[in-house]
Amino acid sequence: MMRKRILVLNGPNLNRLGKREVHIYGQTTLAQIEEDLIQKGKTMGCEVVCRQSNHEGNLIDWIHEVHDNFDAMILNPGAFTHYSYALRDAVASITKPCVEIHLSNIHARESFRKTSVIAPVCIGQICGFGAVGYTLALQAVLEQIKEA
Amino acid sequence: MMRKRILVLNGPNLNRLGKREVHIYGQTTLAQIEEDLIQKGKTMGCEVVCRQSNHEGNLIDWIHEVHDNFDAMILNPGAFTHYSYALRDAVASITKPCVEIHLSNIHARESFRKTSVIAPVCIGQICGFGAVGYTLALQAVLEQIKEA
Amino acid sequence: MMRKRILVLNGPNLNRLGKREVHIYGQTTLAQIEEDLIQKGKTMGCEVVCRQSNHEGNLIDWIHEVHDNFDAMILNPGAFTHYSYALRDAVASITKPCVEIHLSNIHARESFRKTSVIAPVCIGQICGFGAVGYTLALQAVLEQIKEA
Amino acid sequence: MMRKRILVLNGPNLNRLGKREVHIYGQTTLAQIEEDLIQKGKTMGCEVVCRQSNHEGNLIDWIHEVHDNFDAMILNPGAFTHYSYALRDAVASITKPCVEIHLSNIHARESFRKTSVIAPVCIGQICGFGAVGYTLALQAVLEQIKEA
Amino acid sequence: MMRKRILVLNGPNLNRLGKREVHIYGQTTLAQIEEDLIQKGKTMGCEVVCRQSNHEGNLIDWIHEVHDNFDAMILNPGAFTHYSYALRDAVASITKPCVEIHLSNIHARESFRKTSVIAPVCIGQICGFGAVGYTLALQAVLEQIKEA
Amino acid sequence: MMRKRILVLNGPNLNRLGKREVHIYGQTTLAQIEEDLIQKGKTMGCEVVCRQSNHEGNLIDWIHEVHDNFDAMILNPGAFTHYSYALRDAVASITKPCVEIHLSNIHARESFRKTSVIAPVCIGQICGFGAVGYTLALQAVLEQIKEA
Amino acid sequence: MMRKRILVLNGPNLNRLGKREVHIYGQTTLAQIEEDLIQKGKTMGCEVVCRQSNHEGNLIDWIHEVHDNFDAMILNPGAFTHYSYALRDAVASITKPCVEIHLSNIHARESFRKTSVIAPVCIGQICGFGAVGYTLALQAVLEQIKEA
Amino acid sequence: MMRKRILVLNGPNLNRLGKREVHIYGQTTLAQIEEDLIQKGKTMGCEVVCRQSNHEGNLIDWIHEVHDNFDAMILNPGAFTHYSYALRDAVASITKPCVEIHLSNIHARESFRKTSVIAPVCIGQICGFGAVGYTLALQAVLEQIKEA
Amino acid sequence: MMRKRILVLNGPNLNRLGKREVHIYGQTTLAQIEEDLIQKGKTMGCEVVCRQSNHEGNLIDWIHEVHDNFDAMILNPGAFTHYSYALRDAVASITKPCVEIHLSNIHARESFRKTSVIAPVCIGQICGFGAVGYTLALQAVLEQIKEA
Amino acid sequence: MMRKRILVLNGPNLNRLGKREVHIYGQTTLAQIEEDLIQKGKTMGCEVVCRQSNHEGNLIDWIHEVHDNFDAMILNPGAFTHYSYALRDAVASITKPCVEIHLSNIHARESFRKTSVIAPVCIGQICGFGAVGYTLALQAVLEQIKEA
Amino acid sequence: MMRKRILVLNGPNLNRLGKREVHIYGQTTLAQIEEDLIQKGKTMGCEVVCRQSNHEGNLIDWIHEVHDNFDAMILNPGAFTHYSYALRDAVASITKPCVEIHLSNIHARESFRKTSVIAPVCIGQICGFGAVGYTLALQAVLEQIKEA
Amino acid sequence: MMRKRILVLNGPNLNRLGKREVHIYGQTTLAQIEEDLIQKGKTMGCEVVCRQSNHEGNLIDWIHEVHDNFDAMILNPGAFTHYSYALRDAVASITKPCVEIHLSNIHARESFRKTSVIAPVCIGQICGFGAVGYTLALQAVLEQIKEA
Repeated sequence: MMRKRILVLNGPNLNRLGKREVHIYGQTTLAQIEEDLIQKGKTMGCEVVCRQSNHEGNLIDWIHEVHDNFDAMILNPGAFTHYSYALRDAVASITKPCVEIHLSNIHARESFRKTSVIAPVCIGQICGFGAVGYTLALQAVLEQIKEA
Repeated sequence: MMRKRILVLNGPNLNRLGKREVHIYGQTTLAQIEEDLIQKGKTMGCEVVCRQSNHEGNLIDWIHEVHDNFDAMILNPGAFTHYSYALRDAVASITKPCVEIHLSNIHARESFRKTSVIAPVCIGQICGFGAVGYTLALQAVLEQIKEA
Repeated sequence: MMRKRILVLNGPNLNRLGKREVHIYGQTTLAQIEEDLIQKGKTMGCEVVCRQSNHEGNLIDWIHEVHDNFDAMILNPGAFTHYSYALRDAVASITKPCVEIHLSNIHARESFRKTSVIAPVCIGQICGFGAVGYTLALQAVLEQIKEA
Repeated sequence: MMRKRILVLNGPNLNRLGKREVHIYGQTTLAQIEEDLIQKGKTMGCEVVCRQSNHEGNLIDWIHEVHDNFDAMILNPGAFTHYSYALRDAVASITKPCVEIHLSNIHARESFRKTSVIAPVCIGQICGFGAVGYTLALQAVLEQIKEA
Repeated sequence: MMRKRILVLNGPNLNRLGKREVHIYGQTTLAQIEEDLIQKGKTMGCEVVCRQSNHEGNLIDWIHEVHDNFDAMILNPGAFTHYSYALRDAVASITKPCVEIHLSNIHARESFRKTSVIAPVCIGQICGFGAVGYTLALQAVLEQIKEA
Repeated sequence: MMRKRILVLNGPNLNRLGKREVHIYGQTTLAQIEEDLIQKGKTMGCEVVCRQSNHEGNLIDWIHEVHDNFDAMILNPGAFTHYSYALRDAVASITKPCVEIHLSNIHARESFRKTSVIAPVCIGQICGFGAVGYTLALQAVLEQIKEA
Repeated sequence: MMRKRILVLNGPNLNRLGKREVHIYGQTTLAQIEEDLIQKGKTMGCEVVCRQSNHEGNLIDWIHEVHDNFDAMILNPGAFTHYSYALRDAVASITKPCVEIHLSNIHARESFRKTSVIAPVCIGQICGFGAVGYTLALQAVLEQIKEA
Repeated sequence: MMRKRILVLNGPNLNRLGKREVHIYGQTTLAQIEEDLIQKGKTMGCEVVCRQSNHEGNLIDWIHEVHDNFDAMILNPGAFTHYSYALRDAVASITKPCVEIHLSNIHARESFRKTSVIAPVCIGQICGFGAVGYTLALQAVLEQIKEA
Repeated sequence: MMRKRILVLNGPNLNRLGKREVHIYGQTTLAQIEEDLIQKGKTMGCEVVCRQSNHEGNLIDWIHEVHDNFDAMILNPGAFTHYSYALRDAVASITKPCVEIHLSNIHARESFRKTSVIAPVCIGQICGFGAVGYTLALQAVLEQIKEA
Repeated sequence: MMRKRILVLNGPNLNRLGKREVHIYGQTTLAQIEEDLIQKGKTMGCEVVCRQSNHEGNLIDWIHEVHDNFDAMILNPGAFTHYSYALRDAVASITKPCVEIHLSNIHARESFRKTSVIAPVCIGQICGFGAVGYTLALQAVLEQIKEA
Repeated sequence: MMRKRILVLNGPNLNRLGKREVHIYGQTTLAQIEEDLIQKGKTMGCEVVCRQSNHEGNLIDWIHEVHDNFDAMILNPGAFTHYSYALRDAVASITKPCVEIHLSNIHARESFRKTSVIAPVCIGQICGFGAVGYTLALQAVLEQIKEA
Repeated sequence: MMRKRILVLNGPNLNRLGKREVHIYGQTTLAQIEEDLIQKGKTMGCEVVCRQSNHEGNLIDWIHEVHDNFDAMILNPGAFTHYSYALRDAVASITKPCVEIHLSNIHARESFRKTSVIAPVCIGQICGFGAVGYTLALQAVLEQIKEA
């Protein structure tokens, strides 16, 4: 069996993790999270590829790549969560599963953060566990494509 | 160090898992999920206690027990998710962390299912991964109380 | 052919029928309605079983019983009509038909009474005809399972 | 005692029953429903008169006739249910009882179908039982004017 | 003249008073409040009976008892305040006066706490004065039944 | 100077004036109102033509006639007031002034009666004065075309 | 029979009539309108008293005077129309009839102008006819107290 | 192959095209549009039949005819677009395709014009191109039934 | 210890108590309520000062005085309750506690009366007990400043 | 060229600046702000006149004065910002420019503070810069009348 | 006369046409649609230039080019339709006509797709006809600039 | 003391200033505004750096630079004001102050322009003064960092 390939996409402002609003998002940097996920992926027998952009268009381009080059996707859309129907359509346009992930508990913050326009086309959503959530998402998505 | 004790609460209609709307909730029964969680708990070095009730009052009584007898809680409030402010207040009245969990992706169903009145007082929420979600929740909650 | 078994469930405050707000709900007591329905059931060749509770959890437990022990259900959810998504899920979790019934015309009262969260998973709804409505519901449900 | 006279009014598009969206409305034609009701009416000792129109104005004219020429009315307003305040005022302008009836379960369809602007001035509403509903409505309305 | 009998009902989570969110609800326990009320009642020449439950159904059952066994009722519905139309109907089904009471100022907290579905069928509402509010409610309700 | 010609249009259910809900609309019949207006018109030196229909289409056809055959229009749209954008467009399609009139005070009744979709294309609105309102409307409209 | 006394109240900014937004309100000044009304009142056999204030409190004080010193009131509340529940309560606190009047057609302007919080406690409303509307209001109110 | 037959229906007030609000709807009359369409139809090898009515009922009757006598329909519902669920149901009750057309850009006018209750049961919608839009609609509908 | 000074403010239309809508507000006049409160205050060892105005500005000026000259305030804002953010800001601008009071049960009347824009900056609210409510408010506020 | 005259109006509760909620509004008193503005005005070659009132009516009266006696106006409406349509109409009734100013950032506070009913008739709005904002407003308004 | 130049812009995810959700968008690829349009353009005597991007910024840049380099524009904004006010402003900033086009019938899908924030600044909108719609849009836009 | 560095960011379509909708935005080009600001900055002793982009992602990248390379920021988000929560999070992720600026009075235009999702994380907002507003913003922001 071939090694699974997982794309991990982080959206706007996540490049400032560890420097930005530490009381909400924690002190771990994105580089640390990505490095950790890649290692965890190796342990679980899959290849993890990580990308981040503040540009909605880049994220859409990369999601399209998933269709041919990856088996699944983990997506932290940042603030795009709440209005980017374009990202939603991108996720819906591929047939590979996507897990939506948030570092903070979006239900315990400003009311606009409670609605995700992307979650309805994902297989599931994880939020509130900080960096740990990415590991959970990786497990969830691997479990999903194992079953598929 | 003492073994951690985790209470896993399932709310209304979850006793019908595996018999009810299988296309939404899957074929695993609640008994199987609970048995599996207890075993996984042993592996992770914690004691998992599972309860289910269709009575809001029972769930509240049990949540109150968490304060003194458990280290954390995993809660699938079923349909209470969407209106039981009493459950919310029960969770808020204890100082132990709670993870909210749903088998199905509540964001991909009827619109009333998108809102959780309980999630704002939990540490996080996991949904859409079926029975696998409980294992993820267990990991999340153990990670949380380890850090605490 | 076996005699059909019909469960008639009455929700909160319906035990006070005939004593409570007589100008809205009429003077017949619940006991009289139930007795009458059981007799009518005999005439129509079916067995009618009647239960009432002010406890949402009891109603859910009883609805679950319908799956194995009854052919259909008549449900007056009382005020649970307007918010108990847990009752809705209970009805949706069984494969036997359910008719929702109200004594008063819920459309001619306070605006919160116009919405039923349960009716979408029933086969139909009858309201406004007082005690007579139960007899109509019995006919409707028998007609339904005859066809089924 | 004189024989009661009941007017049965069907609104827009109900002339296409049995030809139109059979999965929603069933295969019985309006002519069959009307014929059946007239027969049932004879059995119950009342005269049933049936009319249908796609013209809101015709329906209003006929409702006005009820005041002098009929004892009660059964009304399936079709899509007028959801916006015709003119029909509502017509029903309110007569002192004879009116029962609102729908073939399909209007609560299990598009959200605009959940609201009836006419039901608040009727004595009750029946929906979801297909052609059977008309017979139930006839019983309900006869019971009502018997009591009156 | 017979001594008046007053039922004091406390709803979900109020058994955790003094242990729970002390900055909102204060440090007095429910037992202390109840004991104090019973004493105050004696001074004022009435008998105070206190009950608490986390079960909506129990509260409804007890409210029904007021009809025959008590002269008035003081009700702190806890979080049921905001959605339990069943409690509302229970209060409306008795002819004895009811005063709604809240420890905290519900208008200065989350927006969902501003609406009471029960207050419209009570004679009045008191909120924001902590344990003192129960004494005020007792005075208010005694004044009411004195006049009646 | 030629005598002005005024069209007075009454919409659905106004033919039942004097017979219908007398506590709201008064005891005067539409025939009396029309007769009175024609007389008043003669006194004021104008010709009043009165028509009534329960058919939205008829009202639209007649409004179109105003363009060529009348100098102004008085319109009581009945319940069409609240939803007939078709009537609104008809009024907007002519260049003669229109006064909207209601017998009852529409602001003191059901909330749906507070909104007129037609008033924005009229020159003004009069409500609440019963039959007297028609005379006021006649004066208002004559004043308007005098000035024009 | 004693001469009737009518109070005509004009609210905020109406003192600027004829100077302010002439395309909306016309060129007649308030002094001219008041003078004209007083003359018309004499013709009709009643005494008209006119007052204007930009102070909500003054208007309330004057409305209270109506109870003892006037037979009816004509009120142009200006922008208070849309939010002054205090004016509404003042009108409701007297037993003399009040007619609400607006110079412009409030239905053809900004959407906030469509709602009057005061109209529900008046006997009727007139809008859109400029200064002429005051004369119509005077007739309407005299007709009303004649009947009373 | 038989010549296709297309019904072109125009709703309320469209008979006033070219006379009414020329700045919005242009100077072409409906007769000219219809004549032009019939000629264009001949060129494209289909028979175009045109009707107009201000009566909702007539439009419904004609739509029903499409089922048996036409291959497709072009519908300009005028102001019925925004509230006539009866027209919507009529379109849904036939199995022939329908194109909704508007002369003006309904998205650039009053907000109530932005919503079409009929478009969801059509195959598509064209708006904003004046008389040209009808030709486009004819092409669209012919393309559709060619493919079907 | 110095005697506490309490300011009791009554807002618009409360000067008409006992004369106005007696079925809602009772027959006691404001003078009687004020006299009674002053006496009760003496008994409780505090000085009660009472003022009333129909002018929002006066109420604001007086609230500002509380900062320096009183220990607490009881405020019945009348209809200002529902829209006067200026009163709210006045209360928020002082550091002395304020109790909001209403004679009638504002939750059992028109829906606009259910919202208080002032209550969020008070310590609590009492409504529905008529003149008795003022005494309760006095006790509540004294209890509060005793503790402070 | 004549010296420009600028009216600076401050609304309710601004007289408590420096004493009230210092964490929101800062420690500068209104007298200091006014003094500073008058000095700055002299430097810029204009005469600044400052007034404050808690009475909506006073503010309206003063705004009317601007029409004849001033060249422009700076207005801090305080809480009137959010509901005083009367102030809005006053500003609209004069032809001199008005700048709306707020000390605090109204977008970062309670949600009701985000809407200004007055800003649409001003030339612009400045908020969030404390006392500095008045100087900016003075520059803005002088720039405006220089251009005019 | 110079050949007209038309820019055809396709927004996010339209590069996946023919590969993505074929049941909604059909099997034609974007390359085929573009090729076809260029050919059709030649036949009609105009030059068609086609571009696609998933980047909102690119689309805005290209729309700005229309001002100087093209005579008109056809725009399928994809999911940007529903939230990109920036695209709207870009279209509004040029003086050349724009036609909005959608492949699917946006009125028959999820409710968020019913609203276009861009259509109000276009000349018209076409939706529901798949690839055919682009040809119709080309005709519409050419007709428009011919007239211009 | 080092010279302060201020970043001035202009969002989508602002590159078209002076060419676009001149009646709304004025005739000054962005280059002129920027040149003017740089000069004014020199006078005030600070360095002004100006950038513009139609790409949300570029703006976010540049805002991140502020954290390390600038002392404050002036931001005209153009249409992103109304929906770009990603820009909001970018501003919130830096600890340097940001002033939001708009050329036009956003409160006097389409209703969607009244809401800024970014303003709540800025220190203040200036709108309606055209190019002058940038100078005011520069003063405001310098005043702010002087105090800091």
